[in-house]
Amino acid sequence: MKRPNPIERMINSFKQLPSVGPKMAERLSYFILKAHGSFVDELIDSIKNARKQIHVCSRCYNLTEVDPCSICSDEKREKSLLCVVETPQDLLSISNVKNYNGLYFVLGGALSPLDGIGPDDLRVRELINRIKNDRIGEVIIATDADSKGETTALFLSEQIKPLNVRVTRLGYGLPVGGDLEYADEVTLTRAIESRKEM
Amino acid sequence: MKRPNPIERMINSFKQLPSVGPKMAERLSYFILKAHGSFVDELIDSIKNARKQIHVCSRCYNLTEVDPCSICSDEKREKSLLCVVETPQDLLSISNVKNYNGLYFVLGGALSPLDGIGPDDLRVRELINRIKNDRIGEVIIATDADSKGETTALFLSEQIKPLNVRVTRLGYGLPVGGDLEYADEVTLTRAIESRKEM
Repeated sequence: MKRPNPIERMINSFKQLPSVGPKMAERLSYFILKAHGSFVDELIDSIKNARKQIHVCSRCYNLTEVDPCSICSDEKREKSLLCVVETPQDLLSISNVKNYNGLYFVLGGALSPLDGIGPDDLRVRELINRIKNDRIGEVIIATDADSKGETTALFLSEQIKPLNVRVTRLGYGLPVGGDLEYADEVTLTRAIESRKEM
Repeated sequence: MKRPNPIERMINSFKQLPSVGPKMAERLSYFILKAHGSFVDELIDSIKNARKQIHVCSRCYNLTEVDPCSICSDEKREKSLLCVVETPQDLLSISNVKNYNGLYFVLGGALSPLDGIGPDDLRVRELINRIKNDRIGEVIIATDADSKGETTALFLSEQIKPLNVRVTRLGYGLPVGGDLEYADEVTLTRAIESRKEM
């Protein structure tokens, strides 16, 4: 016997989500079929609402409901200090560190030649322009502590140094090989304190 | 900084799916925000379509587009033979076995006193009525081979036997293609008990 087409189609959709394999997609689909209508409505509505309400900040490329985002429009922040992160999730982690009061820039990922991700796939040009136009005095490169993040950090520092800007990298309070998104606050605080000239 | 509310709301929805923890819910949500509109539309539409098109068969309680389902309305099947399974997924597995040509009954789960699941939470009454009304000659109990499935099988056989119906249980033994070295003791014990003349 074959599975009814509508179930097969839903399983195929779920399979395309990250970290969802065929068995997991099946489990999710049968759960959806058994679930209360109100749960399914809320799931769909929360997805639609987020897609509608969430925008990319035109200054830092963070995800936000208002443009520019609340960080970029915060007058109390140190405007000459720019922290470069890979993703909005990474920005969120650093924003919980109390001793950082500068601005941010979301690069959109890390260099990864094997995956075909080069400088043009990231916001490198936008970053350089931002540094030039906004008289940034120091750029803290807060890419992940894995090999892609390291490669990206080296590449960025080579691009930024000719602009006569101080370039620093998060200190190795970070566990090597670790994903920035999962770092705890204390580790991140240490990492910012021990940032180094590149 | 807090995450924007629409993202938080979407994460909360995803967290309620089975096997999806907080980090996974976050990853799914950010994936959805970055994904192509066409993918998100297809995901939502496939969910809505499945919820609309898929019904529970009024005879066997399988999931189906038409009621009664294609198995129940198949005139060539052995109508006095009934295979009881826990879920529609289990039914699908057995339906691919070529030497079974009887009908099915989806119980809706297994007994699990610790989770508060008793006979009234399953389709026990419906099963007994079906056996009585449809002159079933043999019931094959194909619940899972775990403790809940075993408990359910024992309970059902006690309920069905007084109706003067033959009750059988799926045979236990080595999975075909399985390595003896890795088989557990209980399975091996059962395999020896159910050994056959060669």
